[in-house]
Amino acid sequence: MIVNMSDSATEEQIEHVIQRIREAGFQPHITRGTERTIVAAVGSGGRRHEIEALSVAPGVDNVVAIAQPFKLVSRQTRPQPSVVDVAGVKIGGEEVVVIAGPCSVESREQLLETAQAVKRAGASMLRGGAYKPRTSPYEFQGLGVEALKILREARELTGLPVVTEVMSTEDVDLICEYADILQVGARNMQNFALLRRLATANKPILLKRGPSALVKEWLLAAEYLLSGGNSQVVLCERGIKTFETATRNTIDLAAIALAKELSHLPVIADPSHGTGKQSLIGAISRAAIAVGADGIIVEVHPCPERALSDGPQSLDIPQFERVMRGLSAPLRPVLAPTLHLARA
Amino acid sequence: MIVNMSDSATEEQIEHVIQRIREAGFQPHITRGTERTIVAAVGSGGRRHEIEALSVAPGVDNVVAIAQPFKLVSRQTRPQPSVVDVAGVKIGGEEVVVIAGPCSVESREQLLETAQAVKRAGASMLRGGAYKPRTSPYEFQGLGVEALKILREARELTGLPVVTEVMSTEDVDLICEYADILQVGARNMQNFALLRRLATANKPILLKRGPSALVKEWLLAAEYLLSGGNSQVVLCERGIKTFETATRNTIDLAAIALAKELSHLPVIADPSHGTGKQSLIGAISRAAIAVGADGIIVEVHPCPERALSDGPQSLDIPQFERVMRGLSAPLRPVLAPTLHLARA
Amino acid sequence: MIVNMSDSATEEQIEHVIQRIREAGFQPHITRGTERTIVAAVGSGGRRHEIEALSVAPGVDNVVAIAQPFKLVSRQTRPQPSVVDVAGVKIGGEEVVVIAGPCSVESREQLLETAQAVKRAGASMLRGGAYKPRTSPYEFQGLGVEALKILREARELTGLPVVTEVMSTEDVDLICEYADILQVGARNMQNFALLRRLATANKPILLKRGPSALVKEWLLAAEYLLSGGNSQVVLCERGIKTFETATRNTIDLAAIALAKELSHLPVIADPSHGTGKQSLIGAISRAAIAVGADGIIVEVHPCPERALSDGPQSLDIPQFERVMRGLSAPLRPVLAPTLHLARA
Amino acid sequence: MIVNMSDSATEEQIEHVIQRIREAGFQPHITRGTERTIVAAVGSGGRRHEIEALSVAPGVDNVVAIAQPFKLVSRQTRPQPSVVDVAGVKIGGEEVVVIAGPCSVESREQLLETAQAVKRAGASMLRGGAYKPRTSPYEFQGLGVEALKILREARELTGLPVVTEVMSTEDVDLICEYADILQVGARNMQNFALLRRLATANKPILLKRGPSALVKEWLLAAEYLLSGGNSQVVLCERGIKTFETATRNTIDLAAIALAKELSHLPVIADPSHGTGKQSLIGAISRAAIAVGADGIIVEVHPCPERALSDGPQSLDIPQFERVMRGLSAPLRPVLAPTLHLARA
Repeated sequence: MIVNMSDSATEEQIEHVIQRIREAGFQPHITRGTERTIVAAVGSGGRRHEIEALSVAPGVDNVVAIAQPFKLVSRQTRPQPSVVDVAGVKIGGEEVVVIAGPCSVESREQLLETAQAVKRAGASMLRGGAYKPRTSPYEFQGLGVEALKILREARELTGLPVVTEVMSTEDVDLICEYADILQVGARNMQNFALLRRLATANKPILLKRGPSALVKEWLLAAEYLLSGGNSQVVLCERGIKTFETATRNTIDLAAIALAKELSHLPVIADPSHGTGKQSLIGAISRAAIAVGADGIIVEVHPCPERALSDGPQSLDIPQFERVMRGLSAPLRPVLAPTLHLARA
Repeated sequence: MIVNMSDSATEEQIEHVIQRIREAGFQPHITRGTERTIVAAVGSGGRRHEIEALSVAPGVDNVVAIAQPFKLVSRQTRPQPSVVDVAGVKIGGEEVVVIAGPCSVESREQLLETAQAVKRAGASMLRGGAYKPRTSPYEFQGLGVEALKILREARELTGLPVVTEVMSTEDVDLICEYADILQVGARNMQNFALLRRLATANKPILLKRGPSALVKEWLLAAEYLLSGGNSQVVLCERGIKTFETATRNTIDLAAIALAKELSHLPVIADPSHGTGKQSLIGAISRAAIAVGADGIIVEVHPCPERALSDGPQSLDIPQFERVMRGLSAPLRPVLAPTLHLARA
Repeated sequence: MIVNMSDSATEEQIEHVIQRIREAGFQPHITRGTERTIVAAVGSGGRRHEIEALSVAPGVDNVVAIAQPFKLVSRQTRPQPSVVDVAGVKIGGEEVVVIAGPCSVESREQLLETAQAVKRAGASMLRGGAYKPRTSPYEFQGLGVEALKILREARELTGLPVVTEVMSTEDVDLICEYADILQVGARNMQNFALLRRLATANKPILLKRGPSALVKEWLLAAEYLLSGGNSQVVLCERGIKTFETATRNTIDLAAIALAKELSHLPVIADPSHGTGKQSLIGAISRAAIAVGADGIIVEVHPCPERALSDGPQSLDIPQFERVMRGLSAPLRPVLAPTLHLARA
Repeated sequence: MIVNMSDSATEEQIEHVIQRIREAGFQPHITRGTERTIVAAVGSGGRRHEIEALSVAPGVDNVVAIAQPFKLVSRQTRPQPSVVDVAGVKIGGEEVVVIAGPCSVESREQLLETAQAVKRAGASMLRGGAYKPRTSPYEFQGLGVEALKILREARELTGLPVVTEVMSTEDVDLICEYADILQVGARNMQNFALLRRLATANKPILLKRGPSALVKEWLLAAEYLLSGGNSQVVLCERGIKTFETATRNTIDLAAIALAKELSHLPVIADPSHGTGKQSLIGAISRAAIAVGADGIIVEVHPCPERALSDGPQSLDIPQFERVMRGLSAPLRPVLAPTLHLARA
């Protein structure tokens, strides 16, 4: 970390910073410029927050962190990509994984019909919400344990592993009995009590990026899981909040490429929440794979206009089949370079 | 709610929408324009999500909600402002309330010294974190129950009611024993499991706005508390995530005025998290009061550069005293209108 | 447009709105709900702003626009996609177009070397800045007319049509002499004086999306060009400003799919400005094509670390060749659906 | 500036960076840590962009700028605040200045009536648009020179100096004849051709912050004016684009305090564009003054619901009078610290 002294810093103030860096367990290293002095805190065993707090010491202009703050999730710790095995489905391997299913489990019929249809169309995992985070208390909150039982039945019927969201530490044990991978929703990405509990669960975790989370913060949320003992983590980009309102969120596909550059963890994309619009899901699914995602998770409902949640962004079965076919279509060709110039 | 048919919608598609509006428990009301048809869903007892999901029905362009989705928190439900009584301190009354104290309780000495100092300077409530939500698992996570005991001691020593954050449903009962008002942190604003649990707690709740929450979503989070049985809710604006990085967050003071226009709940401001910069806290505290906030909550530490968390945005004691004095200074006068025009 | 009366609106206030809708050239159409009344302004010839302004009339809650405000750029006006011919290179046709070259023209040697290299690697158009919009007045501002002459020479040498930015109405005539398509930079997207001037230029326009422009505002900026007489417009998504700082901007690939859904104009992507990071450009280029972009524009420099501008996001020649090869690689295959479920 | 080498950087790569720092006109200063090496570029006469571009040199992790990039606008250059004299009205002095008037000049009657009314209510300057930047080409674009003549008449009638927007370099001379201070609109904040032209105008400039401009970028836009010869610059915060849609923009009042900390230039606030809502303008005007703004600029129209532009955010005359009275009301008092604690 680097402490930048202000132009008017006195020798005494510089000396104070040097002293504090030593107390924090680092070695100070001083660079005197023509205009200002900078003091680097060198070493790896010190207490970073004490250096950060020097930003308010007299004569200090600001403090800049150099190194990335995450460790176990980093590519520097583990250069080869991690593969997470979800009941036999490998996420992060040579092939991309498609996870599909309804936003919410609404009934036995709805889920079993959807599960069989998405399997037929090529999905390799089933999604379905039992406990739903809803913006309003007056909206459908999920069927709870009844939904979990239906999910298990669908799993047995189709052989598709199941992902479902966990919203509370108190539900972790129960959901672990039914699901093959537990989802942490975007709004809970920094629910640290939940992350700490899931770090000791014996199931993989699908960690969605929060709507206002930096890539760095997302990776640090994953670091809670790995440092607590659970290294079976799949990251999921599902769009961030921006000023654009034509889409429900702005899906940040560059963040997928970046997360894979910084971390060894697999990363998937959620084009349903990422766009909120049926008509864009096929294009974004293809783009996610092109950018390097290890899979996609999409919402499918037998009749989106009757869905109890997320109808506007759910695909019906024929639409999902079209999206699946699109995933194996080749990219549009590049115009061959010839002598183009028109004569004036 | 209003369903806008696309220009090319057929009679059959319009009829389908009309039918679905009836099924959802509303009365349909049709307006045929020169270019397009709109169908309003009229009534109050229907199922809104079924109308929302019509956005994917054939021939439908989009669906627009008209009415605000919150009820109990609304000014329309209760025109007069609510006053929340926190162990004798009234938030939302004629005077603004100042809550001050360290980000984290670090030791008995640190907290007692701070508590006495902020009381002397004019604070009427004490803040201090026992359980800390930290971006990285390697940062100081709070002293937990030990901190709660120290907070109780400070409360007895100074008479200041205590606010502290609750991060998990499992801690609610314990924290209720020690605190006078429980804080829901910004990152937990949509931790609905926590909100539901707090709705049945017998303590007031300080509900921070999430960093990417619309004012509407913030009020709906409060609606979870009120609809669950706890009407002792204080809202707190603490800055939102934007592209600006010169401040830690962008404090949205207009949201305070707007929340007070839409809701009867008291609203306070957190200039410490809202700016992340010591030097701006005095100005933003004044502005928050000018805009109509019912109070402010600020971080104070005997020695910010040694704080275990949030040092850069913590005031030391003399700085806090200056901020307090600033709160009663008059506004700068307006230039009196005279004939200004200089002759060329 | 729809005027929503508040719950407490009086008959007199409703009557006033009805009267004003008539005065504005629309027919009023009233829907009386159980809680509130809505009045639609029906027709196409009226003055929209007069209805918008009714949001401040007494008894009015808000005003909602239904129809999209753009006309000539809309797919509804012209369902088939437009193809823009830039000196023989067709943008919006069956093949995607690659535009490459340095951020700034720095010297004859630099540009000619780059132009020949990008042509060899498969680019079909050349970019290069002569007049540079720079955040600071102390940064390199471009070589101006000297750069234009070098661009012409590169064009003659390679046969590649040339795109360069125009920053001022006063430069339009001059640049039209040298360039095959004129770029409006992101920061000038709503420089309406410039747009009006370019509407009468006889060259195609590459219109970049502004860093805080809604897709709707971007299309309305294009509408200035079309309504003024220039229909040869190519849109370019180059990233928007968000809270994420790990990338220079957040490239909004869904906006490309959306713009192509709403408009008949061709759309290309700028992964260089969209990410600001060399290492992400290949992945985002592929993703842009997968999402439906009609081309990409990338910055290439013989020696990025010596570039006078945008070095960090410029590719060197071998990197550009790799990006080009990546554009024709197939998408990663989808995991075939088999019976995955591991036995516990 | 500081160049951070990656953990795996070789001696050769470090040597290359050292060499390039020398070539760029700085002295290199090396700090070798346990994990990584950092190289500072020390000195003031070097070429910054060459150091920035080193971020893509082999073995380099990233490059961090230390010093602020602006000079003439900085408080470090000129510690005492600047006062800008606009035809006798001093902005930045001991009193706050209120600028009021319609969004657009629509007619002689409308402007003269408004000018007299705002003067009576206490405004000391008149605003009014002659050339209007409008999102859509189909909206009212302003009366142009006719509006300028009406503004001059209002100026003579009331003695109020006049501010109006300039959108194009070609209009600068003309508008200088009529206006006392020229406004650069938010969308033109980085129209560098316009800024360069205004740097040589003999009138003060009101420079609005762009909707996606960092405070740093805003100050650099002002630096274009000062470095080009015009030091009569007033900054204006008018709200930034964020995800919140309940207000038209998010007014960033902390940016006012920050701009005044970093720069000696006067700063005013625009609560009309900053909120887009009549009902919030009074509260935000007070807050702007409390935070340290040197003035406010507000839109006033005799009949907002008939305004040709910005009706929803325009005050009528009685509302403006109320806002003016609010500016001199005292701040709400702070609850006095007494022994509050309720006995359980």
